[in-house]
Amino acid sequence: MTNGADLLCDTLLANDVDVCFANPGTSEMHFVAALDRKQNMRCVLGLFEGVVTGCADGYARLADKPAATLLHTGPGLSNGLANLHNARRAGTPMVNVVGDHASYHLPNDAALTTDIESLAEPMSKYVRRCAGADDVSRATADAITQARNAPTGVTTVILPADAAWGELPDDSPVSMANLRAPSRVDDARLIAAIKALKTGAKPVLMLAGKALRAEALTRAQQIAEATGARIIAQQSNARVERGAGRVPVERVPYVVELAQEFLAGTTHLILVGAKAPVTFFAYPNKPTTPMPLGCQVLTLADAGDDAPGALDLLAQGLNLPATAKVTVPHAPIPDLMSGDLTTAAIATAVANFLPDNAIIADESVTSGREFFGFTHGAAPHDHLQVTGGAIGGGLPLACGAAIACPDRKVVNLQADGSAMYTNQALWTMARERTDTCVVIFSNRRYAILQGELTNVGAGEPGRNANKMLNLDDPAIGWVSLANGMGVEAAQASTADQFNDRFKSAMARKGPFLIEALI
Amino acid sequence: MTNGADLLCDTLLANDVDVCFANPGTSEMHFVAALDRKQNMRCVLGLFEGVVTGCADGYARLADKPAATLLHTGPGLSNGLANLHNARRAGTPMVNVVGDHASYHLPNDAALTTDIESLAEPMSKYVRRCAGADDVSRATADAITQARNAPTGVTTVILPADAAWGELPDDSPVSMANLRAPSRVDDARLIAAIKALKTGAKPVLMLAGKALRAEALTRAQQIAEATGARIIAQQSNARVERGAGRVPVERVPYVVELAQEFLAGTTHLILVGAKAPVTFFAYPNKPTTPMPLGCQVLTLADAGDDAPGALDLLAQGLNLPATAKVTVPHAPIPDLMSGDLTTAAIATAVANFLPDNAIIADESVTSGREFFGFTHGAAPHDHLQVTGGAIGGGLPLACGAAIACPDRKVVNLQADGSAMYTNQALWTMARERTDTCVVIFSNRRYAILQGELTNVGAGEPGRNANKMLNLDDPAIGWVSLANGMGVEAAQASTADQFNDRFKSAMARKGPFLIEALI
Repeated sequence: MTNGADLLCDTLLANDVDVCFANPGTSEMHFVAALDRKQNMRCVLGLFEGVVTGCADGYARLADKPAATLLHTGPGLSNGLANLHNARRAGTPMVNVVGDHASYHLPNDAALTTDIESLAEPMSKYVRRCAGADDVSRATADAITQARNAPTGVTTVILPADAAWGELPDDSPVSMANLRAPSRVDDARLIAAIKALKTGAKPVLMLAGKALRAEALTRAQQIAEATGARIIAQQSNARVERGAGRVPVERVPYVVELAQEFLAGTTHLILVGAKAPVTFFAYPNKPTTPMPLGCQVLTLADAGDDAPGALDLLAQGLNLPATAKVTVPHAPIPDLMSGDLTTAAIATAVANFLPDNAIIADESVTSGREFFGFTHGAAPHDHLQVTGGAIGGGLPLACGAAIACPDRKVVNLQADGSAMYTNQALWTMARERTDTCVVIFSNRRYAILQGELTNVGAGEPGRNANKMLNLDDPAIGWVSLANGMGVEAAQASTADQFNDRFKSAMARKGPFLIEALI
Repeated sequence: MTNGADLLCDTLLANDVDVCFANPGTSEMHFVAALDRKQNMRCVLGLFEGVVTGCADGYARLADKPAATLLHTGPGLSNGLANLHNARRAGTPMVNVVGDHASYHLPNDAALTTDIESLAEPMSKYVRRCAGADDVSRATADAITQARNAPTGVTTVILPADAAWGELPDDSPVSMANLRAPSRVDDARLIAAIKALKTGAKPVLMLAGKALRAEALTRAQQIAEATGARIIAQQSNARVERGAGRVPVERVPYVVELAQEFLAGTTHLILVGAKAPVTFFAYPNKPTTPMPLGCQVLTLADAGDDAPGALDLLAQGLNLPATAKVTVPHAPIPDLMSGDLTTAAIATAVANFLPDNAIIADESVTSGREFFGFTHGAAPHDHLQVTGGAIGGGLPLACGAAIACPDRKVVNLQADGSAMYTNQALWTMARERTDTCVVIFSNRRYAILQGELTNVGAGEPGRNANKMLNLDDPAIGWVSLANGMGVEAAQASTADQFNDRFKSAMARKGPFLIEALI
């Protein structure tokens, strides 16, 4: 005899889902026992579910396949929702397994009983409650199908305890996901895009998703060179392959006025897996889109389409050679800075010392807006952003990416206020010996909000506003905090100190934290 | 001119809601600016929303009135949901203000756009979206009405940014809540309860909510002495007034078999604001209620009724004197222990050194199950529990209770695994100089789950199970962690050391943490 929980694990493994980020509870003990019998499954514990879901997001962005998560009933899922929201916005494939009470116990309304569907649906592409032990494998395979097929996304399987422990025959079938390739784009869209590129006064290709991988970017650059179009990316992106020798791409700025300036004159915006830009927030008497008046928006590929393939078809339609040869301007690495520790000095140090093929998980918020300009010439790397605006994504993203890519250095550029949200990720880094260097931008305030308070015309913050925007009383001691969770750490208060710390951090293995006092 | 945000603050203040636990974002900047103009509102920042909502829960349990919370859109609410779940189970009055995008920006589906209603409803008694600036005061007053009227509960007001910044005439009316007293219980229920008490072989009064305050407990004891009934409480309770001179009350145990034993022989269970006991989880081949077969369950007062008043009416119906005189057995304070540091040694130290009128916020989970037995004779105190089974409630409960009662010592008995969930509460304790002593039961594992794994018959945990149940690699350094957030701390590894540390912690003011290595 076997049981539903065993079959759940078998289904995950048979479908190449072999990492499970977890924070289990009592209702998931049969699943834990089943995982214990499956040595091919790697289980990674997070001491808070925001770590669990954020790690799964980072993992999948690098692995290009989903991880599973294990969450304990409605409250466990609730704690993971903010990073599920980020994952949803990134289009990250993920399979959440949320344990629930045994089905016959739900009417008793025991303490942990919650409406899991209502909580899961806002952040999930697909939610499925297992009807019983004999439905677990099918439900899991369906969730994997939905997670992996474009548009890829977050899926949630609700596993009642009696479906987990329900017994099944040993020869119960293991269901397989029904995967299909992303769609080829319509000819009509191709023709419209080619026309816009050929005839538009100022056409722009806006890339997202897999169109931001190095090869697709090269193809886009080939098209740009042939047509005079410009290549841009959304403000936040799940993953961009960039650095020396790769086609640089600039992102739409966060600040409304800067975004308007950035897009000024655009006559045709051609979306390649991207969404037309809107402002992050609305402000009184400001527009909610930075697009210039009269700009025509054309969708070449949407999230369900094969965006790199669309670029190939576009190049074909423009009669460009199948092997793209493009001119990537040489981007010099700026000289190391001295004196005060600034965000520019940090970006410069990263540009100088980043090892080849590193991964940058960037939640530097206000401190990182100028980062791209300094690092176009840095060693080739992947750049990951927090995509949904829910703070607390950076540390877990870094941790999950490191678990997907154990041979690559991961650098986490991390705002202090956001880092506090999921500081427990440091412990998982220590436990899993991830090769992660966390750089905390310790400005001891919610700097973005101080700017926004000014934006709304509220003048100088007074007592109550300062109580909600300043983090300086007490100052957070990041070295102590990291040490408390088993991560070695050091402080840097000048550019020279930071250069030394960062250089030596790049030369060592394992988790390390630098508290940058900016 | 004024605006919606100002009127929101004015409505809260006019209705005696004068503490706001907050973690704001851009969409709430007008509310922050408004709070800045209201010096009677106390704003308390939490560096994570689970701290914000948990503090509001602890505050209201002691203040007997709601606090407001300020949360940033769907993800901010999401982070606060687990402790809203606990507050919901405690019947805690609370008014959440969740900022959202300007109404006209929602169709743009900007990054932070989420289905806030779907997220809020599972944990809220009442959810109301402000229709515009001129609806803000009415919506807020309605939420206060719903929060405060029995059954008291969690309410959520969704504040679109344009409702906050929308201008209003200076003389806009401030709406008032429509409060009413809890209901008097039905005569039929009274008569049935009296009959059960008079004729039942083994009647039991099960008390909850305000029936667990000292005066109501005395009345219940008077009834018990007159009728031979027994007084018990639910397994988890929002607030119990207990200690020397007060009527002791035992709670239904967590473990199914112990709960069955505890309730064995009960012929009539009379619910006074309580719910009939069910097991916390279901287990294969175990019952989901510990109630003995044939036991009759009678509801005297439900959550909407005046439970202390019901006890008064019951006493009247039994012709007992209006002034209750009862025999409270003298509970001796156990002698301080020496040698190994055990949970019993900790409970004994608390019993010896707890100052008068202290508050205990108890999230000790497995480590605290025997606590009541040692502390019936401790100085009179309030005992608060995490009521919904969502871990991470204890630290914020302690912080919020201390803010409600600045002149009372608060002791937080805190499991390590649960403490990690909302460790950011330590920072708020430091910032607000709360008089809180946090005792971390550092057993470096999810001990409850190790027990549950055995319960499901999975045998000895192997590699994957241990990876999910042990917290010892790395061990969490609670002294470092606390220091990093501005809280002084010390370690204790023997009973004598703990006695010393705890005694001196009781003699000082301000936040302090003791890492008890058990």
